[in-house]
Amino acid sequence: MNDRFLKACRREPVDATPVWFMRQAGRYMKAFRDIRAKHSLLTVCKTPELACEVTLQPINRFDFDASIIFADILLPLEPMGLNLEFVKGEGPCIYNPVRSEKDVDALKPVVPQESLGYVMEAIKLVRAELNVPLIGFAGAPFTLASYMIEGGSSRNYIDTKKMMYGAPAVWDRLMGKLTRVLADYLSAQVDAGAQVLQIFDSWIGALSPGDYRTYVFPHMKRLLSELHTFGVPVIHFGTGTATLLQMQKEAGGDVIGLDWRVHLDEAWASLGYDVAVQGNLDPITLFGPVSELEKRVDDIVTRAGKRPGHIFNLGHGILPETPLESVEAVIRMVHKKSAKILSA
Amino acid sequence: MNDRFLKACRREPVDATPVWFMRQAGRYMKAFRDIRAKHSLLTVCKTPELACEVTLQPINRFDFDASIIFADILLPLEPMGLNLEFVKGEGPCIYNPVRSEKDVDALKPVVPQESLGYVMEAIKLVRAELNVPLIGFAGAPFTLASYMIEGGSSRNYIDTKKMMYGAPAVWDRLMGKLTRVLADYLSAQVDAGAQVLQIFDSWIGALSPGDYRTYVFPHMKRLLSELHTFGVPVIHFGTGTATLLQMQKEAGGDVIGLDWRVHLDEAWASLGYDVAVQGNLDPITLFGPVSELEKRVDDIVTRAGKRPGHIFNLGHGILPETPLESVEAVIRMVHKKSAKILSA
Repeated sequence: MNDRFLKACRREPVDATPVWFMRQAGRYMKAFRDIRAKHSLLTVCKTPELACEVTLQPINRFDFDASIIFADILLPLEPMGLNLEFVKGEGPCIYNPVRSEKDVDALKPVVPQESLGYVMEAIKLVRAELNVPLIGFAGAPFTLASYMIEGGSSRNYIDTKKMMYGAPAVWDRLMGKLTRVLADYLSAQVDAGAQVLQIFDSWIGALSPGDYRTYVFPHMKRLLSELHTFGVPVIHFGTGTATLLQMQKEAGGDVIGLDWRVHLDEAWASLGYDVAVQGNLDPITLFGPVSELEKRVDDIVTRAGKRPGHIFNLGHGILPETPLESVEAVIRMVHKKSAKILSA
Repeated sequence: MNDRFLKACRREPVDATPVWFMRQAGRYMKAFRDIRAKHSLLTVCKTPELACEVTLQPINRFDFDASIIFADILLPLEPMGLNLEFVKGEGPCIYNPVRSEKDVDALKPVVPQESLGYVMEAIKLVRAELNVPLIGFAGAPFTLASYMIEGGSSRNYIDTKKMMYGAPAVWDRLMGKLTRVLADYLSAQVDAGAQVLQIFDSWIGALSPGDYRTYVFPHMKRLLSELHTFGVPVIHFGTGTATLLQMQKEAGGDVIGLDWRVHLDEAWASLGYDVAVQGNLDPITLFGPVSELEKRVDDIVTRAGKRPGHIFNLGHGILPETPLESVEAVIRMVHKKSAKILSA
């Protein structure tokens, strides 16, 4: 069992910095595209054997130190009553978005073991095959609320912010319902075998620091306090978070995600060293030459230094057209360079 | 002549904080939509009488302290040889994007007085009508390069970064050519009557601080040093810039733009008070209730305090569906609240 990743989550010494990539089970691999040519995204998610197969693809092909269960952050919205589809070339579409108090009231409670049982089944199947730790995950309340309200991806989050500013009690009710569903869903994932949890607040960078504090922080604090009792490390992730990081840490999590818009050493210093960090390579650098990639990997690993508690990752998910050679090269370079630094 | 805005650009005392909005000549006004129903965006830009008319619409309707010439940052790309169209619902499309060394070599030099003369004509027409200062503007080299390379708007800037990382000499040549064109274009705008210049590096927040330093900073420094000799104040604007602000100041500009992701007082303190700041209201707050809007306006004006050199603005352009009442309310609240603070 390779436990570098678990050790780094707990800020314990490791022989080399662990590395995994968000969306590492994804379209940049031919084996994944072959499965997706035959099955929709939702079918792969809902068929434990298929979800298990794609989860293991990157683990069997690359030297990753952690695995993340293949699923989508929007899955819990279906049992809450939303009509969800992934439209080719357009991304997620929710045909009955949540806009009013009535819409929020109509959201159904979720028993994840029942309506999302396929995720737990997939976790069990994957765990039986793995020699690296398995990460379970969920979207954070704000990020999920933004999809529910906008009906899909968004550029300006107009309707989301309209509800926040114009109907704060309704917003709080929605965030409260999401927090309840997510805590139960993540608890079920741990029961099924997830050894670490990651919370994706991917679009939180759309908010001002003041809005984060007022409309998001209290819910994240409640959610992360509950997750803390599950006894597994929690990774708290976002992008565009340069001015939110300290509040994210205050809200909770054992590991804070850093995108590429911050220098790792400066961000870590500002967070304090009583928390681990994950990041922070720009995913687009994987499209550049290996010599440039090496400079950037070296820079990040050097900025982390000998301090325990760094997990190497991209600042956001790996993109579909990413060359496989770059993935291989980054993993090799992280392990080699960090082993040298850590043993010096 | 209302010269609050010019005074604030020069960090001189004012009776009340000046306010204007990016894209203040825009779709949120019926008068603008009426013009656009009859003429394409490019036609309005290229017909000085129409450009003048829409530039004046918000000035005649609201109590703004500055006017900005109606134009588009992509206009200079046409005489450089790019085939540009604004496609309804999709935004700008460039049918012959710049991807290779050959493409960069083929870009034509621009004599702005000739091929962009319509902008200068519009500036002259507007100046004759105005009792507030007129801002000329251009896109910054990085932001324009990203449109040229991607062929339009982008989410991940893959091709742009591919050129930066994989062909840095070609990238530098492209940025050099853009810098030349932009300096000449902005010089012509000042000659025609522009009293302040704003440089829009709108998408620079996609870059890591290290990439900004390597691939953008030297070109911005050269451009802004040249603009400095024109004798008019220069506003240096971007979004998602929390970790880039100090380098932006180092590159140049009399006023640094702040989006809503930073607290104005903290950002200004980190920049130093030898530079003015512009911002920083989230444009989406204008969709919320006036009571919330008032809290946020008060907060920003209070954070600016009695210090000279704050220009009130949105953190990015005003959106098409924005209620007119909110625009009116913000202007009124900024003037009233700041006059109280500044005279205290």
